[in-house]
Amino acid sequence: MKLAVDAMGGDYAPEKVVQGVELARDEFADTKFILFGKEDQIRKYLKNGERITIVHTDSEIEMGDEPVRAVRQKKTSSLVLAAQSVKDGKTDALFSAGNTGALLAASLFIIGRIKGIDRPGMTTTLPSLAGPQDSFTMLDVGANAESKVKNLQQFAILGNFYSSNVAGITNPRIALLNNGAEEDKGDTLHKETYQALAKDSNLNFVGNIESRELLNGTADVVVTDGFTGNAVLKNTEGTALSLLKLIKHSILDSGVQGKLGGLMLKPVFKVVQDKMDYSKHGGAVLLGVKAPVVKAHGSSNETQIYHALSQLRQMVDTNLTTNLADYFATRSEQNKEI
Amino acid sequence: MKLAVDAMGGDYAPEKVVQGVELARDEFADTKFILFGKEDQIRKYLKNGERITIVHTDSEIEMGDEPVRAVRQKKTSSLVLAAQSVKDGKTDALFSAGNTGALLAASLFIIGRIKGIDRPGMTTTLPSLAGPQDSFTMLDVGANAESKVKNLQQFAILGNFYSSNVAGITNPRIALLNNGAEEDKGDTLHKETYQALAKDSNLNFVGNIESRELLNGTADVVVTDGFTGNAVLKNTEGTALSLLKLIKHSILDSGVQGKLGGLMLKPVFKVVQDKMDYSKHGGAVLLGVKAPVVKAHGSSNETQIYHALSQLRQMVDTNLTTNLADYFATRSEQNKEI
Repeated sequence: MKLAVDAMGGDYAPEKVVQGVELARDEFADTKFILFGKEDQIRKYLKNGERITIVHTDSEIEMGDEPVRAVRQKKTSSLVLAAQSVKDGKTDALFSAGNTGALLAASLFIIGRIKGIDRPGMTTTLPSLAGPQDSFTMLDVGANAESKVKNLQQFAILGNFYSSNVAGITNPRIALLNNGAEEDKGDTLHKETYQALAKDSNLNFVGNIESRELLNGTADVVVTDGFTGNAVLKNTEGTALSLLKLIKHSILDSGVQGKLGGLMLKPVFKVVQDKMDYSKHGGAVLLGVKAPVVKAHGSSNETQIYHALSQLRQMVDTNLTTNLADYFATRSEQNKEI
Repeated sequence: MKLAVDAMGGDYAPEKVVQGVELARDEFADTKFILFGKEDQIRKYLKNGERITIVHTDSEIEMGDEPVRAVRQKKTSSLVLAAQSVKDGKTDALFSAGNTGALLAASLFIIGRIKGIDRPGMTTTLPSLAGPQDSFTMLDVGANAESKVKNLQQFAILGNFYSSNVAGITNPRIALLNNGAEEDKGDTLHKETYQALAKDSNLNFVGNIESRELLNGTADVVVTDGFTGNAVLKNTEGTALSLLKLIKHSILDSGVQGKLGGLMLKPVFKVVQDKMDYSKHGGAVLLGVKAPVVKAHGSSNETQIYHALSQLRQMVDTNLTTNLADYFATRSEQNKEI
């Protein structure tokens, strides 16, 4: 398999991207990597060119660029040419740690949506601190600012496939993020979505989940509109970060006893940080386009890039997007017959 | 001043409610408390009847009752009669730790909205872990499942008054909870609200705030629609709780060193818990009705009830609802002239 890598995207590109690619190349003997970017800069960091091809590109899309315009105008940028190689069937999947909006735009305009899917959903994997699994999948976390019932229905199906194919969970428990556990809770969008999901016999729908319960492992796939999902994702990150910072500062402000206690708890905080760190599950996945697309955090280091590439590889390996395309094709046939 | 207290609402009612009322009575010499509930049960916990009047009621609204129906049908319940006493001018403000939906319904149907306000907003005070203030105000956190631009505009004004009158903050910084810092972020509702708030010269509008930044003290009032606000509030509580639980379990699972370290850090965790505990700022306030209304958490102990009653008293003392009514009356006159 061949993975298209935007080598110029991310705060530490191309250095960390190249290092992450080398880690993944060493791990996966069946995988080739096509790196799009400035050849001299890439070569500077590349230790071993085995199964790594460089496609030189002149320009790149910056973090501050207006996404849609940048994708339309910078036709020879690393991201656009990487997406084009997926579209042309020269590579199987797309990776970037750069401008999220531009990756979204390039995926939609160049790679294209799976037939039957109205809006792809940005999907993330978060830690479950209790329950049978150590993580869960949530979508949409921000690809769409406005969503309709049919979008949320499709997110549920996309998440269901991802959870079973890529995360390897049998019969994933699908929940709807809502403002109460009862089925009549929420605004019209969420009330109607509840009914639609409950009716779908292909889904193991377990009802509403409140954002308070998110990390408690009661669902494998959490379905949400992109506005709420984005707010809740950022809030989870922010609250955890603020709280850990508060603990750290309180330890530093405390006397000798507190500082000593903090020192003794270092291994414990390491465990906590490991459990909260969801980058080991990979990056954010854009589900609903014709090929696997993964976005790593802009500040990713080589290990995080490696995890995101492993995830991308797993998506290709399990034929996720082909399975999705088949499912939606059959579904649309069935809908026609009805 | 006289505060109407639903003595039967809350998980530990009337015991904790009565104890909280006695704490507040001992603190505030100018305040009388009218307790609505089962007289014999209240008397069982009441140590000193000074400035405390009991109005016996036969029934109460349960946590599981459907709010609107319960308020309409249980006309002699403790909550309904307490709200009625506010409406009749016999008391100045309403307190309950019971069914939130029922308190909302009783406030709307019996006490009534301030003229010019379309939808009251549920308002909560959360800790600021950095910045110049130790807390901020957020609304709406769930009174309304669906909101329009004019509702969010009114929430901003309500929050502005609350923050300056009750929290005592000069020229509060008002921010809009949105999915990005830039003014063109978010769905139509949030884009249009941004423009409306930016235009209002009576507000110190500081732009969008992302939920990641919520606890970092960059705003004094965070304006949000009730669906997102509810999700983010519950997520903040849930993430903090899950993380602290994870730390606790990791300490218990660690060896002797970890347990000793945990013991030594007990005072530090006490500081952290104190900073995160926002019940000292009172309960949730329903802003936009004709009299101050405060809802304490169902599981409140006597100290938390005391804090909520202090907050209610402060709202009466600073003439918050009268000031709000005057403001909206003038505003509507000005709008007519235009």
